[in-house]
Amino acid sequence: MRLATLSIKGKPAAAAQLSSGAWLNIALAASGQKNEALASGCLQSLIAGGPDAMAALNAIVAQAENGQLADAVVADASLMAPIPAPRKNIFCVGRNYREHIAEGEKAQNIKVGVTEHPVFFTKPPTSIVPPEGDILVFQEVSEAVDYEVELAVVIGKPGRNIAKASAFDHVFGYTILNDITARDVQRRHGGQYFKGKGLDGSCPVGPWIVTADAISDPHKLSIGLTVNGEQRQNGNTSDMIFDIPTLIASLSEGLTLEPGDIIATGTPSGVGYAMDPPHFLKAGDEVICEVTEIGQLRNTVRNA
Amino acid sequence: MRLATLSIKGKPAAAAQLSSGAWLNIALAASGQKNEALASGCLQSLIAGGPDAMAALNAIVAQAENGQLADAVVADASLMAPIPAPRKNIFCVGRNYREHIAEGEKAQNIKVGVTEHPVFFTKPPTSIVPPEGDILVFQEVSEAVDYEVELAVVIGKPGRNIAKASAFDHVFGYTILNDITARDVQRRHGGQYFKGKGLDGSCPVGPWIVTADAISDPHKLSIGLTVNGEQRQNGNTSDMIFDIPTLIASLSEGLTLEPGDIIATGTPSGVGYAMDPPHFLKAGDEVICEVTEIGQLRNTVRNA
Repeated sequence: MRLATLSIKGKPAAAAQLSSGAWLNIALAASGQKNEALASGCLQSLIAGGPDAMAALNAIVAQAENGQLADAVVADASLMAPIPAPRKNIFCVGRNYREHIAEGEKAQNIKVGVTEHPVFFTKPPTSIVPPEGDILVFQEVSEAVDYEVELAVVIGKPGRNIAKASAFDHVFGYTILNDITARDVQRRHGGQYFKGKGLDGSCPVGPWIVTADAISDPHKLSIGLTVNGEQRQNGNTSDMIFDIPTLIASLSEGLTLEPGDIIATGTPSGVGYAMDPPHFLKAGDEVICEVTEIGQLRNTVRNA
Repeated sequence: MRLATLSIKGKPAAAAQLSSGAWLNIALAASGQKNEALASGCLQSLIAGGPDAMAALNAIVAQAENGQLADAVVADASLMAPIPAPRKNIFCVGRNYREHIAEGEKAQNIKVGVTEHPVFFTKPPTSIVPPEGDILVFQEVSEAVDYEVELAVVIGKPGRNIAKASAFDHVFGYTILNDITARDVQRRHGGQYFKGKGLDGSCPVGPWIVTADAISDPHKLSIGLTVNGEQRQNGNTSDMIFDIPTLIASLSEGLTLEPGDIIATGTPSGVGYAMDPPHFLKAGDEVICEVTEIGQLRNTVRNA
């Protein structure tokens, strides 16, 4: 199932996609029930509601597919980020595809290699950009704004010290994330990625969350990115160095993961700074991220 | 004024300290008014309410000082972290005191020096520990849990691209933060600090927020830490490399700061890993952070 957050009169409304392509406004459809997770209209609360909330959701989706609840069906929807206001920063993973590490070493003429453990950093909620929203370039801050298409995991069941073997039990679904990075800023703050990865307008997410049951194998998805129609990244999630269970196990060592947490799993090769000469994003560029079985995340670049 | 979040029957209640030392439950005291920021009982909402909310708060505090609102006065309070559930990760600053950089270089036999720009990283909300709460040691995750007393700035007025000259206009107040760090974990994830700084139970904050008007000069505060009564850190905020206006200006370049955001400003020398031999925290240790004009933040270490 595809779950999104619609913008209805500027306010977020959790929605499930019907087979027709139309969206079911979940809170509106569930208004006759006393299910708090559904009535909240908030995808994060729905996710936190666990299997009970999903069972209740499946029931109303089935009703809508049968032509009921027509008042709650939205044909022409504008989408927010699936979780527009997450309760913490987005977890991100660096250097998780071999060819991306190799292109970085070549471009910077340094040797970093594969790390023994995953490289984690974060992006703040203020960086989030909705589908079709604008990636921002702050010309006074950075002259090197770059893209990174990533498969993002959305946590469902909370947990700490999660074993690899049970890691997928904690995955609610998947979405696409573009880890926009100001390369010059990333490098000038003592080697810590946060500032260069954390600018406003640097984290397109979406367009929706696909529930885990609807993804055949998250490690066999084509993942690519185009800029103005030119293919720049073209990889496969099978090439991750640390796979999803390893990332979840490592991140959750002594650290509690909560429902709605987002983990971006790293980018394949093809980033702009490693091109010869480097190509950075500029106002007007159209950037499209695509992951098979999820869809396309489209954004346009503009000067802030 | 000192502002805290009390735990009342396990639920958070924003409170202001009276001259008697007792706490005024703000939502209860304001129950006759229609002031949402005060009625919320949430310090973050109060901070977001800006000068209007603070004026309304000052009025009820004056009433309470005059012996009114007695039902809202709490004599014996248990404190939560001042902002128990911040809406994003806590912003942190690394390597911001010269002697701390020097002791790190000596302990690791490396040369890192002073960076040209501040070093930013984050700690997630799940890491927060209340005053008197337990610092956690995950023995299977880290054998090198260390302390770092820091002055923390709480943002009031939101802003982006904040000039140094107006930075203090954006400061609501100050608190104390202990940036507990798993040194071995900090180093094994490709050099990014996040994982080693982000474990559950690794971020004592409090005991309260002192509003900016009540601090004579945030760059002239003694800042120290004891472990079981032994003085380990003993510095002064005058020794910061990047002062508070510089940190706010740098962090807010292209990045919006919001009311209630917390920025930990770095630690002076005296950390455990740089001692010869290194001294790490162990279950039962009592750790006390102290910053003049703010107070003491006391926590005990236990195994998770």
